[in-house]
Amino acid sequence: MKVFNASFTLSSDERCELSDITKHVREAIQQFPVSNGIALINTLHTTCALFINEFQSALIDDLKGLIERLVPARGGYRHDDPRYSDCERGNACAHLRAALLGRSIAIGLVNGELALGRFQSVIFAELDGPRKREITVQVLGE
Amino acid sequence: MKVFNASFTLSSDERCELSDITKHVREAIQQFPVSNGIALINTLHTTCALFINEFQSALIDDLKGLIERLVPARGGYRHDDPRYSDCERGNACAHLRAALLGRSIAIGLVNGELALGRFQSVIFAELDGPRKREITVQVLGE
Amino acid sequence: MKVFNASFTLSSDERCELSDITKHVREAIQQFPVSNGIALINTLHTTCALFINEFQSALIDDLKGLIERLVPARGGYRHDDPRYSDCERGNACAHLRAALLGRSIAIGLVNGELALGRFQSVIFAELDGPRKREITVQVLGE
Repeated sequence: MKVFNASFTLSSDERCELSDITKHVREAIQQFPVSNGIALINTLHTTCALFINEFQSALIDDLKGLIERLVPARGGYRHDDPRYSDCERGNACAHLRAALLGRSIAIGLVNGELALGRFQSVIFAELDGPRKREITVQVLGE
Repeated sequence: MKVFNASFTLSSDERCELSDITKHVREAIQQFPVSNGIALINTLHTTCALFINEFQSALIDDLKGLIERLVPARGGYRHDDPRYSDCERGNACAHLRAALLGRSIAIGLVNGELALGRFQSVIFAELDGPRKREITVQVLGE
Repeated sequence: MKVFNASFTLSSDERCELSDITKHVREAIQQFPVSNGIALINTLHTTCALFINEFQSALIDDLKGLIERLVPARGGYRHDDPRYSDCERGNACAHLRAALLGRSIAIGLVNGELALGRFQSVIFAELDGPRKREITVQVLGE
């Protein structure tokens, strides 16, 4: 068994933007001589999220609506208040939304294929864009 | 170190039904000659969830109450509106609930045993049942 | 590739207390002769959480505020009602908060270092303290 590391970058145009990155992940994995193992997808940032769901545009709107409802952009957060924080981005909501959605994915690799179901996409959620972000893909396998 | 793959199916009777699948996972793992490593439990579907918690019936009721409160079954979702989606199941709430609860579990395997605490159960949450679902168990270890 | 297991304990003084355990995790990992692989951080308990975010004190206050708002301490939970549960701790809120925040982290290990971004900390959330808790660190790598 061996370990392989890859990464790619992703740019966004909006403050809150969800992207289907399944193809990027598949391309990163295909360069490795591994047919069985696991793929770990992570991001090194704290104001974005990674998760698996169906990437259907109306559903993506619903997901944005959900996180806006549970964690409003303006919620009187201390992290956005210069008395308590020197962060000037006003991005507390992005941190909190990331905490709810998660930022790490582990997927099986079986016979050279990512073990994803027919409707499953790997989704990257930029929560404090527009920004350029790095996403890492690590494969352990044989 | 080696990689082993198993899977099992689970049926539900209700729209929203939580099941303790710890025993199924243990049985899947025991067939492999591995004593130390990790077990990755995944589902290939987008409207169900996997997580670890105590499986106590009153608490399960509370969990159902929580997700119903945070993500109401009828929330005016675009994914449930034929103008924006050709999905006819009216299951936006199941997708959104799955996004909050997660759908992937990684557990250590130590001396041939799943590293679970006394009150920890592996819980499968059917969020758009009744349905038959496939759950995969992947073991990396030695 | 090999598997290594470590663990450490953590004590808390408050009912709800968030701690930056990145240093503990790094120390646990450094004792192993592994430079590339993955580290799996888990807890064996059901009323605490593990996740990655920025550990900034105002943001930690915001996180506590968020979970208190989404899952109030007193929410009329059945798990806290002696008619439905023999748990006498009144800790349903801790279980439910743990279900939202997650309790398992997988991080890459690249060239002997945990693959964490500049602002990323491994955060342990005690949700039903004060208590002593065990956190496990498992490394698969070479």
